[in-house]
Amino acid sequence: MKQAILAGDRKVLAQAVTLVESQAADKQKQAQQLLQELLPFTGNSIRIGITGVPGAGKSTFIEALGLKLCEKGHRLAVLAVDPSSSVSGGSILGDKTRMEELSKHPNAFIRPSPSGGTLGGVHRKTRESIILCEAAGFDIIFVETVGVGQSEVIVRELVDFFLLLVITGAGDDLQGMKKGIIELADAIAVNKADGENERKAELTKKEYNQILAMVQPATQGWKTRAYTCSALYLKGLEELWEVIQSFVQTTKVSRVFFERRKLQSKQWLLQSIRDELEARFYTNHEIRQLLQEYMKQVVEGKVTVTQAVEALFSIYEVK
Amino acid sequence: MKQAILAGDRKVLAQAVTLVESQAADKQKQAQQLLQELLPFTGNSIRIGITGVPGAGKSTFIEALGLKLCEKGHRLAVLAVDPSSSVSGGSILGDKTRMEELSKHPNAFIRPSPSGGTLGGVHRKTRESIILCEAAGFDIIFVETVGVGQSEVIVRELVDFFLLLVITGAGDDLQGMKKGIIELADAIAVNKADGENERKAELTKKEYNQILAMVQPATQGWKTRAYTCSALYLKGLEELWEVIQSFVQTTKVSRVFFERRKLQSKQWLLQSIRDELEARFYTNHEIRQLLQEYMKQVVEGKVTVTQAVEALFSIYEVK
Repeated sequence: MKQAILAGDRKVLAQAVTLVESQAADKQKQAQQLLQELLPFTGNSIRIGITGVPGAGKSTFIEALGLKLCEKGHRLAVLAVDPSSSVSGGSILGDKTRMEELSKHPNAFIRPSPSGGTLGGVHRKTRESIILCEAAGFDIIFVETVGVGQSEVIVRELVDFFLLLVITGAGDDLQGMKKGIIELADAIAVNKADGENERKAELTKKEYNQILAMVQPATQGWKTRAYTCSALYLKGLEELWEVIQSFVQTTKVSRVFFERRKLQSKQWLLQSIRDELEARFYTNHEIRQLLQEYMKQVVEGKVTVTQAVEALFSIYEVK
Repeated sequence: MKQAILAGDRKVLAQAVTLVESQAADKQKQAQQLLQELLPFTGNSIRIGITGVPGAGKSTFIEALGLKLCEKGHRLAVLAVDPSSSVSGGSILGDKTRMEELSKHPNAFIRPSPSGGTLGGVHRKTRESIILCEAAGFDIIFVETVGVGQSEVIVRELVDFFLLLVITGAGDDLQGMKKGIIELADAIAVNKADGENERKAELTKKEYNQILAMVQPATQGWKTRAYTCSALYLKGLEELWEVIQSFVQTTKVSRVFFERRKLQSKQWLLQSIRDELEARFYTNHEIRQLLQEYMKQVVEGKVTVTQAVEALFSIYEVK
């Protein structure tokens, strides 16, 4: 598989992503072996997170900008993080027809979100899929997510640049957004700035710029700004791409780009350790039997938390 | 100690808080014993978090509102969470003269922030100090923190109501604030609304209300609003106290008050379990020796995170 992936074979890449997403132990082992072999050939892409409320026009935007980039000669991989898919059974990017043209382009690789699993699991699968795509020579990675949960925080930890896609009617839209999401963004694009909507979109842009003036920027040394665009009429996309390029240049010169990636790797390791520690603890038979009882007693004020922890760990030790 | 605390003896209460804050194993054991005995007598207070940038006038505000409440017959405990004190060696509330009148009032108990330790440790100590104060009959607890770090997130998890104290010149002040802090607040008080500053403070209040209209409220079923006050001239304090009382009534009727406390207890237990798991892992001798090496290899892209975790846990198992 290694050689085919390094040669940029999209069919084998898709199989490798499936391997990474598999829960089966033997498949996981294969996947880790493959990832290890591919590691030296990774890291050379711009990782771009794209989020926005439903209705913001994410698919149209990704298709429009994506085609533009592919036509420039870039190779683009589009991945998705959708924690809700495990609940609803649905999946963003699942409907291939949403990006019909892009999915047919020889320079593009589109992958729906991994189904099921915990947020942590989705996190790992997406990170490892990014590694695979990079090894296959994709130099731009889009990670798409719906901005209505914890997913945008996870995506922020996976990417270099984070784009928030919004539409006009800021007040209402902001209401539906998870708090704090604006502060994760390196750029905000007010989409659907066309026809009658153009003037309103300009106003919305101004409103966002006012809010942005009052929050800490997501990236050190970079000023997050709002822009308008129309994915449908291909307006403003070139400008946004220039913003992203300028961001990469600025942060590479200041080393912030590389420091963030280092930090992301470290945090991923620490998070994985935490996940493993908790997985072992909470799947322990004795702990499972007693945790609910101690939880109940803590909530009812019958036992202190410190004592509950001590009691649980005294069982965990003698295991 | 138990009887003296239940009788409201402030001197013994202070000793008990010292016991809770002690790192020594025997003192910790005593503290837990005491907490366990006092648990049935706790929970009957309004826990109010107060945060704000340095210069917002927190001490003056707490002294002014505090005296008002003590004069109404309430018994008020003021605790502090100051994660920076472990670095700077300083401590908020350390300077007793800051709240001279309040500290002399027979109905008040003022306690500086516990010095040193991790955020998690400060968290535990403050929670347990709240328990002690409640057992001693304090029916209002203020938990003060400087709004420049993770401390306000911790305080939010400790309290029923969270007040953000600001001053005029919103743009500048907001810059200095940790992102997301506004969204934690159940009320925002624009302090120093007196003399020439009054008109500006009204404008600032309006600006905050505009921002608040666009973010999710911190508490379900409660609309966070901005108010003006002058702690120095004792203006607007009565109104704020009415807001807090109205909050408590509303959320008790809707059960949100009790649900939040339950959730806080559960989260405290889960957090304590996580802390204990990580403490054991990271103090393990073999892990300590190998973690840095694996971290380095992960950052340099020489080994995958999953493999690093596997390797570390293979060592941890045979311990």
